[in-house]
Amino acid sequence: MKLISNLVALILLPWFLLAHHVHQTSAERSTYIVHMDKSFMPKAFSSHHYWYSSILKSVKSVSQTSFDSDKPEPKLIYTYDNAFHGFSVVISKNELEALKRSPGFISAYADDIITPDTTHSYKFLNLNTATGIWPASNYGKDVIIGVIDTGIWPESPSFKDDGMTEIPARWKGICEVGEEFNSSLCNKKIIGARYFREGIRAANPGVTIPMNSARDIDGHGTHTASIAAGNYVDSVSFFGYAPGTARGVAPRARLAVYKVLWNGGVTSDILAGIDQAVADGVDILSISLSNRNTNLYENPLAIASFGAREKGILVSLSAGNRGSGVRTIRSGIPWGVVVASGTVDRWFSGTLTLGNGKTIIGWSTFPARAAIRNLPLVYNETLSPCNSSSLLSEAPDQSIIICNLTMENTYFDSTMSYLPRSNARAAIIISEDFSILRSNSFPFPGVVISPTQALEVTNYVSSSDAPTATIEFQQTILGTGPRAAPVLSETSSRGPGLSYEGILKPDIMAPGVLILAAYNPHVSGPPIGNNVFLSGDYTLLSGTSMACPHISGVAALLKAAHPDWSPAAIQSAMMTTANPLDNTGQPIREDDNSIATPLGIGSGQVDPNRALDPGLIYDASIQDIANLVCSMNFTREQTQTIIRSSYNCSNPSSDLNYPSFVAVFYSAEEGMMLTKRFVRTVTNVGNGAAIYKYKLEIPVNTTIRIRPQTLVFRKKYEKQSYSLTIRYKADIEIQHRPGSVTWIEQNGNHTVRSPIMVSAGADFSASYIMLLIDNLAVILQVPSFSSNNVSIFLLRT
Amino acid sequence: MKLISNLVALILLPWFLLAHHVHQTSAERSTYIVHMDKSFMPKAFSSHHYWYSSILKSVKSVSQTSFDSDKPEPKLIYTYDNAFHGFSVVISKNELEALKRSPGFISAYADDIITPDTTHSYKFLNLNTATGIWPASNYGKDVIIGVIDTGIWPESPSFKDDGMTEIPARWKGICEVGEEFNSSLCNKKIIGARYFREGIRAANPGVTIPMNSARDIDGHGTHTASIAAGNYVDSVSFFGYAPGTARGVAPRARLAVYKVLWNGGVTSDILAGIDQAVADGVDILSISLSNRNTNLYENPLAIASFGAREKGILVSLSAGNRGSGVRTIRSGIPWGVVVASGTVDRWFSGTLTLGNGKTIIGWSTFPARAAIRNLPLVYNETLSPCNSSSLLSEAPDQSIIICNLTMENTYFDSTMSYLPRSNARAAIIISEDFSILRSNSFPFPGVVISPTQALEVTNYVSSSDAPTATIEFQQTILGTGPRAAPVLSETSSRGPGLSYEGILKPDIMAPGVLILAAYNPHVSGPPIGNNVFLSGDYTLLSGTSMACPHISGVAALLKAAHPDWSPAAIQSAMMTTANPLDNTGQPIREDDNSIATPLGIGSGQVDPNRALDPGLIYDASIQDIANLVCSMNFTREQTQTIIRSSYNCSNPSSDLNYPSFVAVFYSAEEGMMLTKRFVRTVTNVGNGAAIYKYKLEIPVNTTIRIRPQTLVFRKKYEKQSYSLTIRYKADIEIQHRPGSVTWIEQNGNHTVRSPIMVSAGADFSASYIMLLIDNLAVILQVPSFSSNNVSIFLLRT
Repeated sequence: MKLISNLVALILLPWFLLAHHVHQTSAERSTYIVHMDKSFMPKAFSSHHYWYSSILKSVKSVSQTSFDSDKPEPKLIYTYDNAFHGFSVVISKNELEALKRSPGFISAYADDIITPDTTHSYKFLNLNTATGIWPASNYGKDVIIGVIDTGIWPESPSFKDDGMTEIPARWKGICEVGEEFNSSLCNKKIIGARYFREGIRAANPGVTIPMNSARDIDGHGTHTASIAAGNYVDSVSFFGYAPGTARGVAPRARLAVYKVLWNGGVTSDILAGIDQAVADGVDILSISLSNRNTNLYENPLAIASFGAREKGILVSLSAGNRGSGVRTIRSGIPWGVVVASGTVDRWFSGTLTLGNGKTIIGWSTFPARAAIRNLPLVYNETLSPCNSSSLLSEAPDQSIIICNLTMENTYFDSTMSYLPRSNARAAIIISEDFSILRSNSFPFPGVVISPTQALEVTNYVSSSDAPTATIEFQQTILGTGPRAAPVLSETSSRGPGLSYEGILKPDIMAPGVLILAAYNPHVSGPPIGNNVFLSGDYTLLSGTSMACPHISGVAALLKAAHPDWSPAAIQSAMMTTANPLDNTGQPIREDDNSIATPLGIGSGQVDPNRALDPGLIYDASIQDIANLVCSMNFTREQTQTIIRSSYNCSNPSSDLNYPSFVAVFYSAEEGMMLTKRFVRTVTNVGNGAAIYKYKLEIPVNTTIRIRPQTLVFRKKYEKQSYSLTIRYKADIEIQHRPGSVTWIEQNGNHTVRSPIMVSAGADFSASYIMLLIDNLAVILQVPSFSSNNVSIFLLRT
Repeated sequence: MKLISNLVALILLPWFLLAHHVHQTSAERSTYIVHMDKSFMPKAFSSHHYWYSSILKSVKSVSQTSFDSDKPEPKLIYTYDNAFHGFSVVISKNELEALKRSPGFISAYADDIITPDTTHSYKFLNLNTATGIWPASNYGKDVIIGVIDTGIWPESPSFKDDGMTEIPARWKGICEVGEEFNSSLCNKKIIGARYFREGIRAANPGVTIPMNSARDIDGHGTHTASIAAGNYVDSVSFFGYAPGTARGVAPRARLAVYKVLWNGGVTSDILAGIDQAVADGVDILSISLSNRNTNLYENPLAIASFGAREKGILVSLSAGNRGSGVRTIRSGIPWGVVVASGTVDRWFSGTLTLGNGKTIIGWSTFPARAAIRNLPLVYNETLSPCNSSSLLSEAPDQSIIICNLTMENTYFDSTMSYLPRSNARAAIIISEDFSILRSNSFPFPGVVISPTQALEVTNYVSSSDAPTATIEFQQTILGTGPRAAPVLSETSSRGPGLSYEGILKPDIMAPGVLILAAYNPHVSGPPIGNNVFLSGDYTLLSGTSMACPHISGVAALLKAAHPDWSPAAIQSAMMTTANPLDNTGQPIREDDNSIATPLGIGSGQVDPNRALDPGLIYDASIQDIANLVCSMNFTREQTQTIIRSSYNCSNPSSDLNYPSFVAVFYSAEEGMMLTKRFVRTVTNVGNGAAIYKYKLEIPVNTTIRIRPQTLVFRKKYEKQSYSLTIRYKADIEIQHRPGSVTWIEQNGNHTVRSPIMVSAGADFSASYIMLLIDNLAVILQVPSFSSNNVSIFLLRT
C-alpha cells in the first residue's frame, strides 16, 4: 500500500524537474549556493550585494574559456544577509572553481530539490479558555510565526483578522504584490506575504511558473499556517466529519508567509525565504519541508536555522514521512525542534448495523451521507477479494458486498477504484491496513472493519436467510473511543537523524494524522464515485507537515507567555513536559501496538499547559550550539558554512545542554562495557526555592549514575549542574535501548523528564536496507532523484 | 421529460395494487364507503357503531347466497361520525344491494386509491419578525394544523418543541403507540399522531405493512408538516444549496399527524384520518393528496372536507401535479382552498467561468462541491448529443464536455446517467427543459445553460486554442436574479376543476418548487455518480403538495390573529389580497413566458401580511355551501352523501358568496351574446367606516356592469352587497377569458381583488386530448388505473 499512496503522490508531481545539473559538463551552468565570510568584505563596498557582484565579475573574467567566452557574467539569484551571508548564483563549474579562490569564500554547494512533507487537536492538547497556556499567553498575541511553505490562500476564513489588534511596530515585513495577490489581502492576521522563485527560474530557464505570487495553489501552506495560527471559524468540517469550530494552536498569533515551494522547490529559494523572514522579524519559523541532503553543511534548513536561532528565532521542523524504519530522518537538525506525527483521539466512523441489531464501529471517511439502509448483505467468496472491475461487475444490484482485502492482499485504493463501476450500493471492507486511517480518500460508500470484527458479520450472514445491513456515515467519535491516542504515525520518520546521531531526533511528537485545517478550495479534494472530485475550504491531511505547525503554535504561546525565554528554553519546556503516555495512561504505541521509542516520539506528545510552567529548563546559547558544530569533525569550510566566522571553535563540545540524552557507542561489540558521561545544567524557572530528586527508567543492560542526587535551588533563575554517566553492556541484536531521567520537585508539582537513548553504534546493514526502501519511495516521489545522493548516504552510514 | 420523471416515480410505486375490485363478481367482497343518515338511527342503539354493526348483520342474512353462505358477516373497517356519518366495510355486491335497502342508507361507493402529490419561501412571502402577520399572530401560537399524509419523522429537528407553550386543554387527540413510535415521541409541537391502515389491509388481505405506526417512512408527510409549522432549525441546507435557518410558515402552530398513506392509500383510511382529526379538534386541515375520482359525491376529500368545514375547520388542498393542460384539476373542491404551485425567488447556480473570464450563471443542484477548475473545455459535435454511455466513453479524460440536449431531444436524466461512466470531469448541458428546474436530482458535476447562453460558450471554444472553464457549485442566488418569481409551475394542475366548473379553481398559488423542508433521513435522496445515493435531514421537493402546507400555515396565522373568522373569511382574506404580479411587477408567467391565467394561479400568489388586514371579506356559511351543492343537479342520495340530512335544499344556489367569479356559458356558439349576473356580499373587517370603488380588468369580448358603483360602510362588520353582470360575445377559439374586479378603498390602503374567468362552455376536444395525456401519466404512476375512470371523465366533460 505504500507503493499505491506514492503513486498517488506521483500524480501531484512537480511540473519541472531539476535533473539537469547532475551530469553537467564543466562549462554548463547551474545554480550554486555560496557561503561567504562577510568580514572579508572590503570597506569600499556599501553593501554585500555590490561585493558579491564584483566577485562574480572577476570570476567571469578569470574562468573564461573559449567555450563560455560568449556567455554573460554569472547571474546572481539571491543574496543572503540575515540567516547567513552569501548568495546563490548560476555558474559553470569553471566559474565555481574561480569563485572558490575569491577572498571570503567559505563553501558552495549545488542547489537542490526540496519537497513539502490540521482541528480538534487543540482539545486533544488540552488547550482551553479557562486555564493554562491559552489565557496565560493571550492566545499567542503578537507573536509572529513565519511559515516557509507553498504560500497562502488569503481568502480562507481562518485568516480573517477579527479580534486581532494592530500590527506591532517592530514588524518589518511587507505584503508583496503578485499574480492574484494585492496588498489588501494581508491584514492583521496575515501580516506578511512574500514569494521566492528566482532559484526555480534559474534552474529551469524559460519555465512558466503558475501563480507568481504568495498565493497558495497547492493547499499545503494554507493548511500548515492555519494549524499554527488560524483564527476562529465556526461550523467547519471535512464533508461532515470532524465538525466544529476550527482554530489554530495560537489563534491570536500573526502569520508571515514565505512562499518558496512551487510544486516542489529548490534550496536557493528556501534560503531566500528564511533569510527574509529573519530580516522581517518573525519570532517562530514553521518549516514543514524535507530536503534530501543529509550533510548539515549542505542543508539549507540547517544552515538557515542556525542563523535564525542566532536571532532568537525558534525553528520548528517536520521529521519527514519516511517511517517506519529507523534512520529515516534525513537530517535531524540539532538546533531545530524536529517534530514527529501522532494520531488524535478522534475516530471517523462508518457505523455498521446488522439486520440482527448488532452494531459495529468501523472506519469511514466517505465524504457524504449515503443512504445505505436495510440493504441486502452479500458475502460471496468469489467476489470478496474485490480486486478487479470485472469481478465486481458481478456484484448484485443494490447490495452491500463484503470485501476481504486480507485474502489476496488487495490494496484498499484499488478496491475503492473498482467499486463505483459496480452496481453495489456499499461495501464492508475487511482490512488491517493502517494507512487507511491516515487517508482522506474514501470514494465509495463503505466501512472498514478489522478481521476480528468481520467474524461477527460473516457469522450473521451465514446464519441468516436474508441478511441486511445499514451503514451510518459522517460520524465522529471523540475520546478514548475505538483506539487509544496518540499513536505514533507509521510514516513519521524515525531517528537517529542521518546527519548527526549525537542529539536525539525527533525531539517531540504532535498531532499530525487527519488534521482538519484550511485549504485551497480550488484544489481537487477527495474523490466520490468514479470521476467526481470534491473540494472544500477545509480538509483533513496527514503527515509530520501537520505536526510541525502544532509545535510552532505552542512555541508561539510560550513566547507570548515568556517573552524573555530563549529558543532553547522554549524547546526545553516543551520537551521536558511532553507526555510519553497515551490517553489510556499506557506508553504511546505504534500502529502495530508495539511500544514506540524515543526514536519515534522523541520526548513524547507535547503538553502545552505543562510547558507553560516546566520548573527547570535546559538552556543553551548560540555559542553552545556553535561548540557542538565545532565537535562534528567537519572541515573548517564546512563548519564556517554553518556557524560562519562569528564563532570560534576553541571549545568544541558534543555535550550540548539539551533536554534529552543519546549515548552512541560506535564499534561496539557484544558484551563490551561502554561508558559515556554527560554534564547538564538546569535553570530554575519555577517561582522561588525548589528541591528536585531524580527518577530513572534504566535502559536494558545499562547502569546510570547521577551526581548530585538532589538539585537544590534557593531562588528563581538559579542554575545547577549534574552529571549523568551511562555504563552499557553492548547487546548487538537490539541496537537502541530507551530509558529516561525525570527530575521530580519535592513538595511541588514540577516533573522534568528527558528521554535517554543508548545506541550501539551505526548499523550498516540495517540502514543500507532502509535506504534501498527509502530510495524506492523517493524515486516514485521525485523522478529526478539521482544516484549520487544515495552514495552520499552510504558514505555517511 | 415528463415520461422520464414519471418513470422515476414508478420506482417509488405502491407495493400493493388495488386493481382487484374493478372486475369483481357479485359474490366477491371488496371495500365500500357507506354514507348513512344518522337521524334514522333507532334510539335503542347507544352508539352509531352498534347501529352499523346491526345493519351489517342483517345485510349478511338477507343477501346470503349459496356461494357466500360460508362467509362470515361483512367486516366493518371504520365507522365515521365527525366529518360525516357512515362506515367502511368489506362486502360483496350482493351484500351491498341488501345494504342499500337498509333504513338511513344514503350512498355507497368503492374504496379507491389516493396518491400523494414539498424554506426560504417564508422570506419570499415577506414574513418577518418586525411587522405583519408573524408578530400579529404570535407566529400561529396554539393553532392546530392536522396533516393528512404519510406520517412524520418525529426526530427531525424541525419538530423539536423549544419555545412551545403547554398544549391547550381543548385538544382531544392522542399520540398513538406503534412500531418504532412510542408516546414520548410527541411533544408540544407534535401534539397528536395516529395511523389508519384498516382500509389498506382490507383491500389487500395478508399484506405486510411496513412501519405500523405514524412514523413516516416516505418523507412526504414530514416535509409537508414542517413546511406548515416546523420549528426553527439553524444551518440547514440541501447539500449546500438553500442554506439558512429552516422554519415553517407558522412556526408556533401545533401539528397533529394522521398517517393515511402507506406508499399510496385508500379512501376509507383517508376518511378515517380526517374524521378523527375533526373529532380531535384541529383548526386547519392540510391535505396534499390527489384522488382519482372527479365526482364530488364519491370523493372522500370533498365529503370529509364538507364535514370539517361545518366544524369551522379550513381545509387546504393541493391542486395536483398534472399540468400544464387546462382541466387537469381532478376535483377542485368548492369548499376547500385549492392551491397551485409556483417558484420562489431562488436560483441554484452552477456558475460557469470561461477561460476568457466571461461568467455565465447556469443552473445546478449537483449535491456537492466538485473541484472543476480550469479544466479543458471540449465541444465535439459527435459527442454533444450525450445520448449514450458508449458515445460518452469517448469523452476526453479530465475534460468538461458540452452536451447539447436540444439537438436530438435527449432527456436530461438520461444524459446524467451516462456521464458518471465517462472519464469527463464535468458537463455543460444546453437545454430548455424546465423540468430540470423542479428536480433535486443532478448526479454529475455540471451546469445547465440555455441555448442563448450557449452561444457565448461555443464561440469561445471555437476561437480559443486551448479553451478551459471553471464551475462553482452550491451557489444560491436570492431575489430577482436570473428569473422573475413566482413563475407558475408547469406541472401545477389547471382549472376548471373537473368536478365542478362554477367555482374558479385553483384558488390561490403558493411556493411549491424546490422547497427545502424536513425529510426522512433514511430515504435515499439525490444520486451522485453512478451508484451512490445520498440522504439528508432536509430535502428539496417540488409539487402542489409543497404549496398546500404553505397555505395551511398562512391560514393558521390568520386563525391565530383572527380567532373569530370563519374558514370562508380566512379563505377570502387570502384570496382577495393575493398578488397576480411577480417580483418584477409583471403579471405572473408560465415557464414558457406566457402570462398565467386564473386557471393556473387562481387569485395569485398568497400575501400573508396583506391577508392579515384584507378590508373586506366574502363570508359564507355552511348552509350557503349546502345551497351550492343543492344546485349541482345531483340525485338526492348524491347530495346527502355530501351535506347529509343536516341541511335542506330549499334554496339551491350556484352563486356562492365566493371571492372569485366564473361565468361558464355552455353550448355557446360564436358571436352569441351571453349574460350572467352574480350578487355578492362583502363584510367590512377594516377599522370603522370606509368607502370602496371598483376597478375592472375586463375580459376580451366582454362588458361588465357593477351596481352599486360605490360601497359605503359606516362601521366595522357592516355588510354591503353588489351585483356584477357579465355580457360576453362568445369567441370559440379561445375558451377562457380572464379579468378581475378590485374594490379599492378611497383614502385608505385596502384593495380587494377577485379574478374573473369567462368560459365558453365545456371544451370536449381539448379535454379529451388532455385526458389521454393525463391518462398516460397516470398509467405510469398508478398501474392499477382502469379505463372506467377515463370513461367517467369523458362523460363529465
